[in-house]
Amino acid sequence: MDYVYGPGRNHLFVPGPVNIPEPVIRAMNRNNEDYRSPAVPALTKTLLEDVKKIFKTTSGTPFLIPTTGTGAWESALTNTLSPGDRIVTFLIGQFSLLWIDQQQRLKFDVDVVESEWGQGANLNILSSKLSSDRAHTIKAICIVHNETATGVTNNLATVRKLLDQFNHPALLLVDGVSSICAIDFRMDEWGIDVALTGSQKALSLPTGMGIVCASPKALEASKTAKSVRVFFDWNDYLKFYKIGTYWPYTPSIQLLYGLRAALDLIFEEGLDNVIARHNRLGKATRLAVEAWGLKNCTQKEEWFSDTVTAVVVPPYIDSAEIVRRAWKRYNLSLGLGLNKVAGKVFRIGHLGNLNELQLLGCLSGVEMILKDVGYPVKLGSGVAAAAAYFQNTIPLIPSRI
Amino acid sequence: MDYVYGPGRNHLFVPGPVNIPEPVIRAMNRNNEDYRSPAVPALTKTLLEDVKKIFKTTSGTPFLIPTTGTGAWESALTNTLSPGDRIVTFLIGQFSLLWIDQQQRLKFDVDVVESEWGQGANLNILSSKLSSDRAHTIKAICIVHNETATGVTNNLATVRKLLDQFNHPALLLVDGVSSICAIDFRMDEWGIDVALTGSQKALSLPTGMGIVCASPKALEASKTAKSVRVFFDWNDYLKFYKIGTYWPYTPSIQLLYGLRAALDLIFEEGLDNVIARHNRLGKATRLAVEAWGLKNCTQKEEWFSDTVTAVVVPPYIDSAEIVRRAWKRYNLSLGLGLNKVAGKVFRIGHLGNLNELQLLGCLSGVEMILKDVGYPVKLGSGVAAAAAYFQNTIPLIPSRI
Amino acid sequence: MDYVYGPGRNHLFVPGPVNIPEPVIRAMNRNNEDYRSPAVPALTKTLLEDVKKIFKTTSGTPFLIPTTGTGAWESALTNTLSPGDRIVTFLIGQFSLLWIDQQQRLKFDVDVVESEWGQGANLNILSSKLSSDRAHTIKAICIVHNETATGVTNNLATVRKLLDQFNHPALLLVDGVSSICAIDFRMDEWGIDVALTGSQKALSLPTGMGIVCASPKALEASKTAKSVRVFFDWNDYLKFYKIGTYWPYTPSIQLLYGLRAALDLIFEEGLDNVIARHNRLGKATRLAVEAWGLKNCTQKEEWFSDTVTAVVVPPYIDSAEIVRRAWKRYNLSLGLGLNKVAGKVFRIGHLGNLNELQLLGCLSGVEMILKDVGYPVKLGSGVAAAAAYFQNTIPLIPSRI
Amino acid sequence: MDYVYGPGRNHLFVPGPVNIPEPVIRAMNRNNEDYRSPAVPALTKTLLEDVKKIFKTTSGTPFLIPTTGTGAWESALTNTLSPGDRIVTFLIGQFSLLWIDQQQRLKFDVDVVESEWGQGANLNILSSKLSSDRAHTIKAICIVHNETATGVTNNLATVRKLLDQFNHPALLLVDGVSSICAIDFRMDEWGIDVALTGSQKALSLPTGMGIVCASPKALEASKTAKSVRVFFDWNDYLKFYKIGTYWPYTPSIQLLYGLRAALDLIFEEGLDNVIARHNRLGKATRLAVEAWGLKNCTQKEEWFSDTVTAVVVPPYIDSAEIVRRAWKRYNLSLGLGLNKVAGKVFRIGHLGNLNELQLLGCLSGVEMILKDVGYPVKLGSGVAAAAAYFQNTIPLIPSRI
Repeated sequence: MDYVYGPGRNHLFVPGPVNIPEPVIRAMNRNNEDYRSPAVPALTKTLLEDVKKIFKTTSGTPFLIPTTGTGAWESALTNTLSPGDRIVTFLIGQFSLLWIDQQQRLKFDVDVVESEWGQGANLNILSSKLSSDRAHTIKAICIVHNETATGVTNNLATVRKLLDQFNHPALLLVDGVSSICAIDFRMDEWGIDVALTGSQKALSLPTGMGIVCASPKALEASKTAKSVRVFFDWNDYLKFYKIGTYWPYTPSIQLLYGLRAALDLIFEEGLDNVIARHNRLGKATRLAVEAWGLKNCTQKEEWFSDTVTAVVVPPYIDSAEIVRRAWKRYNLSLGLGLNKVAGKVFRIGHLGNLNELQLLGCLSGVEMILKDVGYPVKLGSGVAAAAAYFQNTIPLIPSRI
Repeated sequence: MDYVYGPGRNHLFVPGPVNIPEPVIRAMNRNNEDYRSPAVPALTKTLLEDVKKIFKTTSGTPFLIPTTGTGAWESALTNTLSPGDRIVTFLIGQFSLLWIDQQQRLKFDVDVVESEWGQGANLNILSSKLSSDRAHTIKAICIVHNETATGVTNNLATVRKLLDQFNHPALLLVDGVSSICAIDFRMDEWGIDVALTGSQKALSLPTGMGIVCASPKALEASKTAKSVRVFFDWNDYLKFYKIGTYWPYTPSIQLLYGLRAALDLIFEEGLDNVIARHNRLGKATRLAVEAWGLKNCTQKEEWFSDTVTAVVVPPYIDSAEIVRRAWKRYNLSLGLGLNKVAGKVFRIGHLGNLNELQLLGCLSGVEMILKDVGYPVKLGSGVAAAAAYFQNTIPLIPSRI
Repeated sequence: MDYVYGPGRNHLFVPGPVNIPEPVIRAMNRNNEDYRSPAVPALTKTLLEDVKKIFKTTSGTPFLIPTTGTGAWESALTNTLSPGDRIVTFLIGQFSLLWIDQQQRLKFDVDVVESEWGQGANLNILSSKLSSDRAHTIKAICIVHNETATGVTNNLATVRKLLDQFNHPALLLVDGVSSICAIDFRMDEWGIDVALTGSQKALSLPTGMGIVCASPKALEASKTAKSVRVFFDWNDYLKFYKIGTYWPYTPSIQLLYGLRAALDLIFEEGLDNVIARHNRLGKATRLAVEAWGLKNCTQKEEWFSDTVTAVVVPPYIDSAEIVRRAWKRYNLSLGLGLNKVAGKVFRIGHLGNLNELQLLGCLSGVEMILKDVGYPVKLGSGVAAAAAYFQNTIPLIPSRI
Repeated sequence: MDYVYGPGRNHLFVPGPVNIPEPVIRAMNRNNEDYRSPAVPALTKTLLEDVKKIFKTTSGTPFLIPTTGTGAWESALTNTLSPGDRIVTFLIGQFSLLWIDQQQRLKFDVDVVESEWGQGANLNILSSKLSSDRAHTIKAICIVHNETATGVTNNLATVRKLLDQFNHPALLLVDGVSSICAIDFRMDEWGIDVALTGSQKALSLPTGMGIVCASPKALEASKTAKSVRVFFDWNDYLKFYKIGTYWPYTPSIQLLYGLRAALDLIFEEGLDNVIARHNRLGKATRLAVEAWGLKNCTQKEEWFSDTVTAVVVPPYIDSAEIVRRAWKRYNLSLGLGLNKVAGKVFRIGHLGNLNELQLLGCLSGVEMILKDVGYPVKLGSGVAAAAAYFQNTIPLIPSRI
């Protein structure tokens, strides 16, 4: 029952789910437990405290919901907003599109600010919308920190600045699915009201836990938000937080122990070192793309993503064939181009539990595939560019010195 | 980070999460994978086909939702009903209560038929409601097959018979969380429209997958149901079923492989043998309770549950103390009495991956605890009653003959 | 490829290999590593230091040999003795017999002191041999601390006393395979020169590590011992100990991490608590046997073993049928009677990672099997006797209070 | 307790222990079992039958000994030879040296044929020795198929041809530790009398199983061989083979299931495909070394090894520093130069469960390290050479087409 088995390791370079560290796999290798025993709440307590650190918040309240990123989105929206509420939201790629689709189906009044795919959120338009919204009809700004489909990172600090500039009370809801634990994220400093991620992204766990963090203002909003919700209702969680048993329904015991191990590893490496490592991997990937003479789907450096790079292929190549071939011939998993960029880009995910030599192996594979499909790349060119950068930047592994 | 470690095995006798078979733990001991590769859909296809067998349906359409039982409930309701729809539902214990709470919060017109805790659903009242509902204002019957809080199994065949008798078109929505894979369940034969369970119950997996199965009539209803839903929307699944990639969002790779292994084990044992084993374990537990001179919370034999037994303790004993002591002194996890029966009953879960000697070990533990807390039980009496029954009924392990 | 799968847990009650704790299984769930990196020696260093504690020695030198108990025997003999050396050894059951066979094939002058199976080593004869051996022709005493075939524990303190009494310089070589980590063992206090065990016994690891500990006197003897040896040669180990890389050849990385976890668990429980737990399990088993009206193969209380009980069956029953039936019908693994006691005894192993409810489950199974094969046992009688004893003796799990 | 943890995977490129496939890790993730139950012999039977295929023998008898390669050597020698027997043996590197040391300590009359390190066995000298040995004083030829310290593969077919040419009855004992399952090996065709390997090499298991295969002639020799042996005695195994329980002492249950999985994977890929993959990896490594302008320690192409490449560094570089740096900075494990070539070579192991992108990642790491230590390598040059070769030779993964 190992459909994908080939000799050696699968090279997993989709932008999620990502490689799980061996210690986390070990931590999850266990039988079920009674989640009403004293042990699981004791464990949960440490998790709720420590998970705040990956959001860089001290005032936020986290929820570890047995769901995916899509569910985390729904939790963020339905707990803070009421049907008909006006929200400003940015369409810049497939995942922001899906979130917008959800916002519309949840019956909000969705004000979409669209950009060309490959560009970041148009904050000028946000600025003018905020400036003209003296009546504060905008109840929330919804923004994807990192658009996984195009490899575009939005500038959240600027969003906060605009809100402050216009003294606008709109809630700031942020999808940090492919950024948190990998790209600098500062919930408190940037005044984010709801931040969320999924376990299978930079946290490097299996899929199955949506991690949502709510500011005091968001919690306050949840008291009056009229969106219908039960499974995703924060209040059910808060009720159990108060009595110290934490769970309104059954959590995954394995994911709880896995999260404990994942956080321990991140703290051992140091969150800032983790972020620096992602920056190193991202930059090296971009240097390789440049060396290959290919274009980054992301149009400006200010939006470059340190977790995923969408590579534009020449018009005579079908990027889906690159992904197929990667899997079939090299046991390499790359990301497809989605929707508007289907066939036009392939994606290299470089997030989560990953190191430099793994990425170089991936890049050497991409080079071979590019040649396979008729693109005149010089083998070794991208690897050389990336390696040269690594050599100047990679630190010794601290625990080994 | 093993808060509950003690020498030897933890004896897990809560009615879920239950013991995971070693082969399933093994199957889940793996790295993540790209769920958009050809492998995961190929695996999913076998799962969607085979999981129907545990519902005993050929016409149903299953959904493997990354959620818990609570989410599966929400999926069943929101996909088939519209706010304001009248539903008849039965309050017989804590879990039916929670489902009813959900039904109310989802804004249905909830017609609650209450029974004393320890009794089954009052089908006489259902009968009269159906008979008087000539206008077919009742859109759905919601019923818990097995109430986990009291160990009461409702008779679904009778519910169907009543619907047929009055030629009533109401949908029949069934919570099979603590029955499916353990207690006889016949989706097609009993005309069930939505059946659901959770992975951590008799399927013996970790928590994290809500398994929902919809009849053609339920699917038809989903086209017009106006309840707001996104994460739980079946239509998003169906869209991806059609294109053969199956997943509207990221599934847990580990749970998919785990479900494959779990189904393989169930089919190897034989689903009817699995059900017979649960009957054997349930009956033996009830004989032990009788031998101890204690009362089953379930008031009549017709409602006896083969997956959980709620044992009533004498008034001078706090059943919570039994559960605490079980955990602290014997590494035995029992279920608490919940809500109305808190302090009055403790529960022995006997479902999932379990065999006779494990249960006898548990029963011997309960005997010691009963003495510990001052109940004058004769040590060995319950074990002897259960063992005598086992000896006449337990088959040879087929694969070993 | 799971030949023994049946529903629920396999009940493993052979006197080795024994149940592995979940945390140890987790610790071993890993890829290989370079054993010449700085990491493995650092790990090994902690192991060599800590493993001495299970022998209760400070002056001993341990060797973690990739072999079994049989190899550990060979290591003990060939490193300390020369062909033709006279050794006094005790034949009291199958495992002492096998060791004697090895001693003979290794060309020592083997002086066998035989006892009836079910009795301990005849120390009176040892006394007279020592007293008459003024010339010190006896170079070593070889004794099995706990004879696994009959459940007989020899009194090592008395052996030491005799050696001291006669001021005899013979080496004292002890097989602690089924005693160390389970039965009180004091290498330094009892002047044991070589003590040994196997990983799959009370340490509760997989098979594959023979753990041998040598006193300074034994190490001294190894310098002149003329027995041919290479794989088992301590000097090759000592050479690598000196340079701090520890391994003359490749160790099992998995077993090293497993040993680390196993020792951590033992120290967390407390070695004396571990020994007390084995005493509790042993005593309870013997009380059950008595309650069944059956005889313990061990003839006197002074020899009763806390790790294995050999139960004598009536002449009209074939004990092998009990073992077969246990496996086939109850997923219970019991030990066969070996050699002289084949067909006459079956064995209950109660060592390693085991707790009281597991043992009671086993005992209830034995009761059913006894009835199955026609022995008129009262179901529950043995369980009741054991449980009554447990109830007065079992402590709260310290980490849970 | 993860001394070597760094972000991402450890890149394991020592010539053993090697990377374990995930399905094998899974297969070994299990509790102990009674090895005297019907299940373990049934499993063992399939292993003994199937393991012969990796030796390409039908007439050989395999032994799965709980030991390492060093123990497997000892088993080969002591079962077939008597002290004083003359053997011709070849010293070409550290591992042949260690085997010769063992041969001497086992008291054979060892006739050593030495070559410069980096050369193969001098078969001309063997030829003259055989031709002059009319009296057949030579009882055995001992030869390492692949010298792991220098990356030299000897030509076994020629050895057989010489024996045949002179009609010499000497036994042919072959260390296939770093060749079997990776380099073409034909026990029957080449008339090998004892062949052996270790589980942690190309079989890609943990350390702990020495796999020895004896020809009928070797088995015959074991009847009269006078070397003292017990643990390693084939006759103890054969006795248990006959009665169908297979094990004279406790095997590692985990390694048995692991071996089953490892063989299944090898047969699924196809043994010849496995060997072709190793050839591909070996050739690519050599092309990289050439591109870097460095010398292969192996002096002639006829001896090039497909499992390990020893790379000679310029005199101004300490190869040990390369290995240290690989581990500290890149989480890459390379092999040290040993003994005569210490400081002069580092080794890249490319055997076992490995694929092309993994190797390319390793090569890119080596390039960075070479620059780190001052060797003027062009980054990407070795990777390009290897990738160009791969691109022309790598097949699609059959199970994925």
